[in-house]
Amino acid sequence: DYQSLDKIVIGICGGDGIGPIITKESQRVIEFLLKDEVEKGKIEFKVIDGLTIENRAAHNQAIPDDVLAELKQCHVILKGPTTTPRQGDPWPNVESANVAMRKELDLFANMRPVKVPEEGIDWTFFRENTEGGYAVGSYGVNITDDLAVDFTVATQEGCDRIAKLAYDYAERNHKGKVSIITKANIIKTTDGKFLNTAKKIGEQYPDIVTDDWYVDITTAKLIDPQRRRDFKVFVLPNLYGDIITDEAAEFQGGVGTAGSANIGKKYAMFEAIHGSAPRMITEGRGQYADPCSMLRATVMLLSHIGYQKQADALEAALDKCMFEEKKLVITGRDTGCTCDEFGDYVMETITNMT
Amino acid sequence: DYQSLDKIVIGICGGDGIGPIITKESQRVIEFLLKDEVEKGKIEFKVIDGLTIENRAAHNQAIPDDVLAELKQCHVILKGPTTTPRQGDPWPNVESANVAMRKELDLFANMRPVKVPEEGIDWTFFRENTEGGYAVGSYGVNITDDLAVDFTVATQEGCDRIAKLAYDYAERNHKGKVSIITKANIIKTTDGKFLNTAKKIGEQYPDIVTDDWYVDITTAKLIDPQRRRDFKVFVLPNLYGDIITDEAAEFQGGVGTAGSANIGKKYAMFEAIHGSAPRMITEGRGQYADPCSMLRATVMLLSHIGYQKQADALEAALDKCMFEEKKLVITGRDTGCTCDEFGDYVMETITNMT
Ligand SMILES: CC(C)[C@H](C(=O)O)[C@@H](O)C(=O)O
Ligand SMILES: CC(C)[C@H](C(=O)O)[C@@H](O)C(=O)O
Repeated sequence: DYQSLDKIVIGICGGDGIGPIITKESQRVIEFLLKDEVEKGKIEFKVIDGLTIENRAAHNQAIPDDVLAELKQCHVILKGPTTTPRQGDPWPNVESANVAMRKELDLFANMRPVKVPEEGIDWTFFRENTEGGYAVGSYGVNITDDLAVDFTVATQEGCDRIAKLAYDYAERNHKGKVSIITKANIIKTTDGKFLNTAKKIGEQYPDIVTDDWYVDITTAKLIDPQRRRDFKVFVLPNLYGDIITDEAAEFQGGVGTAGSANIGKKYAMFEAIHGSAPRMITEGRGQYADPCSMLRATVMLLSHIGYQKQADALEAALDKCMFEEKKLVITGRDTGCTCDEFGDYVMETITNMT
Repeated sequence: DYQSLDKIVIGICGGDGIGPIITKESQRVIEFLLKDEVEKGKIEFKVIDGLTIENRAAHNQAIPDDVLAELKQCHVILKGPTTTPRQGDPWPNVESANVAMRKELDLFANMRPVKVPEEGIDWTFFRENTEGGYAVGSYGVNITDDLAVDFTVATQEGCDRIAKLAYDYAERNHKGKVSIITKANIIKTTDGKFLNTAKKIGEQYPDIVTDDWYVDITTAKLIDPQRRRDFKVFVLPNLYGDIITDEAAEFQGGVGTAGSANIGKKYAMFEAIHGSAPRMITEGRGQYADPCSMLRATVMLLSHIGYQKQADALEAALDKCMFEEKKLVITGRDTGCTCDEFGDYVMETITNMT
């Protein structure tokens, strides 16, 4: 319980690419919403600068040691997207900073809400966040020049804890149904374990219906207007969660509108579901980056540390801007408002609504 | 070149669930279209009955040996969906028959076209068909009760041949662009090999633009009406091909409307992209199964063995029924026509158009 702490430290990392641009909007909103708490000394913001690709590349580490130490001094972290080098990029091939952070801070659950009120869509995805194809990372093996092998991992504890979190959430929020998504007909050992474990845990929740689907057909069902509103809560292995939440977010307005909570026993980190969009910067379109993803992540952060009133205020303002007023940042195109204008609009809306 | 053979043997397997119902429509269409060829002795149909779940379960084999021998006597195979047992099913856990067939007959490429003429969508997916998460199948390892591991595989030859096929197709059909879809930022060794190999092969095709995307964001881009028509030809590892083609097919009318060609050096097999839908049978809705998937597969079969005129006739009839007349089988609902009625309609349309 965060509220019982003397002081809650919130880390803020801007990240790369559009990261600093969109994180700035969240920062001013959260500073505004928690102003009194900061004055009381209950909240401290800690800006962490070192999580840039330049610094990570210089240290040749996904998260340099001193940055990791700073992160561990925070209770929760608001993190802008960070660049993962690709072939041809000017940086050495350091690993993804968010994947590293999920592992280092043991953030085992990635919760991603998506809603489209006018269609009755209100989905919450519980993506397992440290295992599956992400566990072994760059330790795949080139057995010969001709044969490459990667590994997919599922532990009992890993399956247990994500399933419990999903069912607990479904129960607490009266969602009525949890859908388990795997490819257990093919990826039999790990997805089989995931599916069986989640089903078994589901049996402990008599008020919640469980169904299960393969990931391939699920991508089709999410599009079907007759069927998609039947889904409520999803629990799924890491890679399928990665894939399906990008699809799901598109219905809400794109990945630029979706935030995620990375939750562990000790730490929690809140971020956009998308990457740092370096092309938007090189093409001079950075001001059209959509801050909604980070603002949605901020809602989850506020709620997570016990500022439910402030979370509700921000969420209501975002819903009003996005769904009622249709004031959208049309990412990367020359229509709609800019990132800054959207931030102003949200601030104004919060003020007017409270 | 099939046309240089004395006789072409076409195997027909009905499969399970809705398989026999939808395969029947393809069988009557192909018998009608190739009537003269059968009379000349150039075409022989070989009905293969043993590919049912009951027979496979009795032999405890994905494909019983005698059935495999029969399949190998055919040049090409038209195959209805087959059931893969799930936990709780009354059968032992035999492996997927289509996955086994892809391996046994070395059908390394799975070509899946999707089109939505009114939206300018004309996509062709080249899914690698024997490697990735499918290669090792049920040989994942439970290292302890607490730790499960599955394997993902990419061979140089496997990556080379699917990429070449995709680029050759793009060149021959003036498609202009090939998109390589991976998750090489995370599944680094195998997807990295796939991406690098495909890029290198792409360099040999100066008239074709190559781009590459991660699979997660691709599922979002396919939905975006502004961007999706920019895609033409896709080349992708097995599991991503599995996932994304179900999503893509939904825009065309659902997985029930999409066929696939499984192509190897020696054999080729043509099937629906979906499963056997056992629930439709148990719920008494089998007559509403959509035969379009198998009919689209039949178009590809006809074209593959050199009957382009007949392939074009069937494709034109299907396009007319589906896109112009909107005569759709609404799978599983009580609207639209039945499977049989759709078959009649297609036969009539072919006759009227020729
Ligand atoms: C940037 C990338 C490594 C990351 C992932 O694959 O998890 C992202 O797509 C996400 O969903 O958070
Ligand atoms: C039925 C299943 C084993 C199969 C696959 O995963 O390849 C199907 O989904 C497909 O796409 O052909």
